[in-house]
Amino acid sequence: MAGNAFYAQSGGVTAVINATACGVIETARKSRRIENVLAGRNGIIGALREELVDTSLESRSDIAGLRYTPSGAFGSCRYKLKGIDDNRAEYERLIDVFRAHDIRYFFYNGGGDSQDTAHKVSQLSLQMGFPITCIGIPKTVDNDLPYTDTCPGFGSVAKYVAVSTREAALDVVSMAESSTKVFVLEVMGRHAGWIAAAGGLARDGNKGAPQIILFPEVDFDKKDFLARVRSSVEKDGYCVVVASEGARYPNGDFIADSGSVDAFGHKQLGGVAPTLVEMVKAEHGYKCHWSVADYLQRAARHLASATDVEQAYAMGRAAVEFALEGKNAVMPIIVRKKTKRYAWTVGEVPLSKVANVEKMMPRSYITKDGYGITAACRRYLEPLIAGEDHPPYKNGLPQYVTLRNKLVRKRLPTFDV
Amino acid sequence: MAGNAFYAQSGGVTAVINATACGVIETARKSRRIENVLAGRNGIIGALREELVDTSLESRSDIAGLRYTPSGAFGSCRYKLKGIDDNRAEYERLIDVFRAHDIRYFFYNGGGDSQDTAHKVSQLSLQMGFPITCIGIPKTVDNDLPYTDTCPGFGSVAKYVAVSTREAALDVVSMAESSTKVFVLEVMGRHAGWIAAAGGLARDGNKGAPQIILFPEVDFDKKDFLARVRSSVEKDGYCVVVASEGARYPNGDFIADSGSVDAFGHKQLGGVAPTLVEMVKAEHGYKCHWSVADYLQRAARHLASATDVEQAYAMGRAAVEFALEGKNAVMPIIVRKKTKRYAWTVGEVPLSKVANVEKMMPRSYITKDGYGITAACRRYLEPLIAGEDHPPYKNGLPQYVTLRNKLVRKRLPTFDV
Repeated sequence: MAGNAFYAQSGGVTAVINATACGVIETARKSRRIENVLAGRNGIIGALREELVDTSLESRSDIAGLRYTPSGAFGSCRYKLKGIDDNRAEYERLIDVFRAHDIRYFFYNGGGDSQDTAHKVSQLSLQMGFPITCIGIPKTVDNDLPYTDTCPGFGSVAKYVAVSTREAALDVVSMAESSTKVFVLEVMGRHAGWIAAAGGLARDGNKGAPQIILFPEVDFDKKDFLARVRSSVEKDGYCVVVASEGARYPNGDFIADSGSVDAFGHKQLGGVAPTLVEMVKAEHGYKCHWSVADYLQRAARHLASATDVEQAYAMGRAAVEFALEGKNAVMPIIVRKKTKRYAWTVGEVPLSKVANVEKMMPRSYITKDGYGITAACRRYLEPLIAGEDHPPYKNGLPQYVTLRNKLVRKRLPTFDV
Repeated sequence: MAGNAFYAQSGGVTAVINATACGVIETARKSRRIENVLAGRNGIIGALREELVDTSLESRSDIAGLRYTPSGAFGSCRYKLKGIDDNRAEYERLIDVFRAHDIRYFFYNGGGDSQDTAHKVSQLSLQMGFPITCIGIPKTVDNDLPYTDTCPGFGSVAKYVAVSTREAALDVVSMAESSTKVFVLEVMGRHAGWIAAAGGLARDGNKGAPQIILFPEVDFDKKDFLARVRSSVEKDGYCVVVASEGARYPNGDFIADSGSVDAFGHKQLGGVAPTLVEMVKAEHGYKCHWSVADYLQRAARHLASATDVEQAYAMGRAAVEFALEGKNAVMPIIVRKKTKRYAWTVGEVPLSKVANVEKMMPRSYITKDGYGITAACRRYLEPLIAGEDHPPYKNGLPQYVTLRNKLVRKRLPTFDV
């Protein structure tokens, strides 16, 4: 069916979500049935507010530049639609906006919640007599979507964490004799340890840094941790720790929350890294350094994985192709081939199966002692960080594109979000 | 005079100090007068302990690989020799070791303290009847050595901070409508704001991120800072802050130290970034994110400035050339030519003039309001981050070299350090 398409970015952005947008828009531009791609200004909020970016006004080179531009070029949002029974008005508003702008295709680029929303929109549009083809597109640095071998966005964070761990470790090795002996790098992943696991790729076989990885999946044992730091320093001369922000005690308390209160009795913003460093200093007196990567890790397009960029683009392209083939309420996925040399292809899964399922790290990916990654985990992770895809630079800085983001004229009354 | 050379790395390491080592060793290998370069294991400590790395055992390709390997390949140290009057024994030990290993050339790669040491060794070796040619080689991410236009190591940190600020800012822009509105990046520079200033390169003319830079040179005014955060959020929708670890109150207290005490009354390890974020949350209630770059910034060889790499190598090469030309007690420097297009050449300065002088940021490089960099500062900084010099990668990770670091046999009694 001819008409417009709607594309929106959802949740935390990544180094490659715009590569997916690039795949969607470039593929849609080649089709005769999709007249224009309207993008949600700040994600689904843009659909509710009828703030729709007219991507036909963006130049071909700017759209091509999305492939190497991190973050969400149209804006993203943290906004979860409630269940249809709780807030039918929001879903109906979406359909109203889509109808007003002749939007026949809905591409929703996000994590588990977004896939759930796309699924519901698909169902409701049928009920409301304005059927919309809904395709979910995977994205999350957390790597926790089911069915797909990996999630676009994860490979680049993994590469950033692996490279940063290797580099910082070399620094610590250089200084350890007379200065810093312990370095702690805090990385993302509140629920799953995929990102922390990537730090393990910096390790050379069974030796060197990082000597300790703290996963959310493994109960934190302070005494054992401190003993391990000590034995690493005594054996290697130094110790590098990669700590997931989600690392926690057996009772579920985050390490980051186990800190102190300020002069007014307020709980202090913790940070796993500084909290661990305080422990080590108090127990062993070693000089420590620590780093919190935070947004740097997921925005670091300058260090993106070429594999990740390619897959992110492919997911966008496949989403449009699926829609044009008449598929509905599905999500393209990355399927790892059972070949010795890493190879992958595009598969699909119904949205109904994806919604609200989290893929945790298998226990077999974590060493028995709980502080490292296994050979199986390395085999899984290594291809995902492979290849470099340097952005163009000018005056020493990457030349990321900024879109015009001009909105189409509104046709409906306002709607409060 | 024919003989061996001694080379040592001193103080905090950088992404390019090994490029200087590469310049020293490759140039020395071409000379007939320098038989071998012996490198200090962990810097000057290696000389005192007679732990001397025999670099003749390293392959040509490994030495070439130093050009793209961050950190200190022979180990560095934080160890300042006392004045000659306070500890003449250490200086005499150095000369003894040099004599025992026929070391006629001393190349010391470090900051102000190291230049002072090199100068003293030069003087004492004459007194002791074993004259040694002493050449200092500049290195410091802090960019605070006098006479030289910049210090090898700084350009790459500056590039890292500029790129990271730009990337993280794009992330914040994407999320600000419904989530994170303020992001704080903490960078190095306890005494001088050079590194924080580099964050300003991410800014596009007079708009965009970072809206606030906190320099050690400018007294911190909490009320004014908070007002500025608010006005940035109200005007731009978000606010990005680059904060030097050395940012401080008018009374000299570091912002990072103004934090809280833990349950036992111990002063908490602060961190400027989390401290600022607590202020902003308490006053405005904005959702904030923060990052502490720490070692990542000075180890990030993957993002080195090509200009910096070239200059680091050139300083090593020039040091050897100076020595072979019969110069003594000097340090090669980078001289910026007065051309419109950036160009530089190698100059020199006597060690006696360099020792213990810190070059601070000129006030004319900081905007009147104290929160940004001026056009003059940008003109100074921009060429220093120019150009990329990507290391080779394998399996997604940079292939940094690890040297054999085999020590020559000791010839002297032990000496306690």
